[in-house]
Amino acid sequence: MSGPAQGMPHASSRSAVLDVIRAAGTISRTGLVRATGFTGATISTVVRRLIDDGLVLEIGRAESTGGKRRVLLQLNPASRYAVGVHLDYAGITYALVDLGGAVVAQMSRVGVGARAPQSVVERMTREVASLIEGAGVERDRVLGLGLVSPGPLTPNSGMRLTPPFMRHWEDFPLDQALAAATGLPVVLDNDATAAALGEHWSGGVPSTATFAALYMGTGIGTGLMVDGVSYRGSSGNAGELGHICLDIDGPECWCGARGCTEAMAGPAAVVAAARADQEVARAAGLTAEPRSVAADFAAVTRAARRGDTGALALLERSARCLAVAARTLANIMDLELLVLTGVSLAKAGPLYLPVVQEELDRAFFPRATHRVEVRLSESAATAPAVGAATLILRAELVPLRAGLRLPGDLAGSEPAPAGNPAP
Amino acid sequence: MSGPAQGMPHASSRSAVLDVIRAAGTISRTGLVRATGFTGATISTVVRRLIDDGLVLEIGRAESTGGKRRVLLQLNPASRYAVGVHLDYAGITYALVDLGGAVVAQMSRVGVGARAPQSVVERMTREVASLIEGAGVERDRVLGLGLVSPGPLTPNSGMRLTPPFMRHWEDFPLDQALAAATGLPVVLDNDATAAALGEHWSGGVPSTATFAALYMGTGIGTGLMVDGVSYRGSSGNAGELGHICLDIDGPECWCGARGCTEAMAGPAAVVAAARADQEVARAAGLTAEPRSVAADFAAVTRAARRGDTGALALLERSARCLAVAARTLANIMDLELLVLTGVSLAKAGPLYLPVVQEELDRAFFPRATHRVEVRLSESAATAPAVGAATLILRAELVPLRAGLRLPGDLAGSEPAPAGNPAP
Repeated sequence: MSGPAQGMPHASSRSAVLDVIRAAGTISRTGLVRATGFTGATISTVVRRLIDDGLVLEIGRAESTGGKRRVLLQLNPASRYAVGVHLDYAGITYALVDLGGAVVAQMSRVGVGARAPQSVVERMTREVASLIEGAGVERDRVLGLGLVSPGPLTPNSGMRLTPPFMRHWEDFPLDQALAAATGLPVVLDNDATAAALGEHWSGGVPSTATFAALYMGTGIGTGLMVDGVSYRGSSGNAGELGHICLDIDGPECWCGARGCTEAMAGPAAVVAAARADQEVARAAGLTAEPRSVAADFAAVTRAARRGDTGALALLERSARCLAVAARTLANIMDLELLVLTGVSLAKAGPLYLPVVQEELDRAFFPRATHRVEVRLSESAATAPAVGAATLILRAELVPLRAGLRLPGDLAGSEPAPAGNPAP
Repeated sequence: MSGPAQGMPHASSRSAVLDVIRAAGTISRTGLVRATGFTGATISTVVRRLIDDGLVLEIGRAESTGGKRRVLLQLNPASRYAVGVHLDYAGITYALVDLGGAVVAQMSRVGVGARAPQSVVERMTREVASLIEGAGVERDRVLGLGLVSPGPLTPNSGMRLTPPFMRHWEDFPLDQALAAATGLPVVLDNDATAAALGEHWSGGVPSTATFAALYMGTGIGTGLMVDGVSYRGSSGNAGELGHICLDIDGPECWCGARGCTEAMAGPAAVVAAARADQEVARAAGLTAEPRSVAADFAAVTRAARRGDTGALALLERSARCLAVAARTLANIMDLELLVLTGVSLAKAGPLYLPVVQEELDRAFFPRATHRVEVRLSESAATAPAVGAATLILRAELVPLRAGLRLPGDLAGSEPAPAGNPAP
């Protein structure tokens, strides 16, 4: 018989089952019926295919409370891999991640600077090949490549309305060029969204948290996750915290609006203010020729941490603005957790954290109901690349969406049934 | 055999199937297999129970492309009803809505004012009874009562951190008192969230839109919907647009923060500014004793629409602030649609709409990718009550969440299969 078999479960059932197995560590078929709400027959069919494809292993039997003992299932992490690439002005970071979410290799190289996109694609292709070979992973187990970078995205390819320092990437068909050069499927996304995914997979964020990764590298953005799923908005451009307005009549931003958080408090604004103040510029060792914004911002941060009061005042003003923007974000999304991440907050985070936490404790709108916890990322430098890889892996592992459940028993809902799967 | 039958589908399958039938109008069992991805066996079981419970009707047979003709299924809208109540300082609005989403009865009564909560509960109980009896609906077909009101909510009952004019409702166990008095299950929610649901069900908003209902009554809030599902945040308090900060050093807000949109541009701020200006106060006929904020705001709006330049200037300033807050909201959520609603925008909406649309066209961050359309609600006065009723109905009708789908065929996904359901 050709074509899909009769009664074959939908691809999303397969992904949901695989994700439940991953999250559980080990689980029986009966456990899968209980966790997913699928019938025993559906679970049997899906699991058989996952085992045939090598994605799931049977690993012996559990003690049962009666009757025959149940076979336990486990994800086979070495069955599939994905490459994540974080492309930024100041650096390119690579990660090779297995199906279980473990980082098996990573490396960092110089950034894109002012180089032509096509030459960067050629270099990335060589570096991806050496990443995979160096880890001893068979090429045909690599599902694809997730590529993340700053700036809003168009639906199918390319970066539009790019920040000023990456303007020459606008309209370059990045995903197509990289897919052609590497032979891998390529998915393009925003670096802040990927940072949130990376925190979720490898940063110890609870899987059901409504949380944001506040990402400050050269610019400012946020990646949003709700119940373990990225919130992307209608075009993949959600979470633009850098363009929250803090002052209707404030300074002009490169985006065309006034008083944006990035224009008032971002690394470039801090560096410009530091350069305008001779004492701070000297204390931070800012040279006449600008380096990258991130490098200059790091220099101002070092001066502040050495106790230079001028540098400290600039960062405190920036932190206060970022804290108010974070409160607006928290009030809109009703967040429970905010993770500070990105290369600039990896260094300045300890100065920003108490200011942001104090603002949320004092003025988060539903503070009578719950607190918003603020944390520093433990993997600020690599989270976007890890998240980029999980963009690919999540195509295999799509969590089951439970849908809206109201309190009480209005719908006449039954308890999740025990089914009758194959043992 | 007692207990759940072996292989009985999960309650969420039942709700998902019912929602697909509702959305489709009429559909066959084969169509349901295709639309849901469930197996034919699951669909057969679920549909049999829905017919037994009277929720779904078989309505004859469709022409088939070959083989036997298929029975078509249709929702039975008169099988279940829900009551929606919108409780506000200035008015209480009631709606009786059937399972198909049609409003079969509605009425408005005076608001809660300064009256004691328990006496308001007794009045509401009488008014709900007269709503149901007046429509000729059997009481045992009413699934429950959705009650919506302003302000942040605690998880199980009551309003906390209420706006100043409803402070005496704080800590009153509203849902429990109303459930005890009416004998109906009660679900409590935010009025802006309900307004978005009401727009979604009866306002012609596309079911997959990422949209916000910007609700301005006495205060300002937003209800958010993503792919047809309410976005509530971690504690049901998402969408607090009234407490977006527009000026770090701005006027104090009753919520404890500074420069909130509500404090700078809400109806109470507009009315206060109008009272402070003798010419505007006279033009608007504002009396020495204040009426409700909403009534005074409506008077200022009428003066502006009659051409009073002072009143017009106040509303234009308010509209400009609201437009910038709406842009911040749109930049965070990546909205594609914004509906202006609530009793104050029902009147002033035509003055606000062009200002908000212009701001989004000019400065929405990913504007190169797509536009945010701004619309006036066609049912601003009743949308929260209709939405409140759908809170109950949606416990029967939970949409199927398709989960994350990435571009391309990375997951080896199959096309949605044709199954083999009972004819």
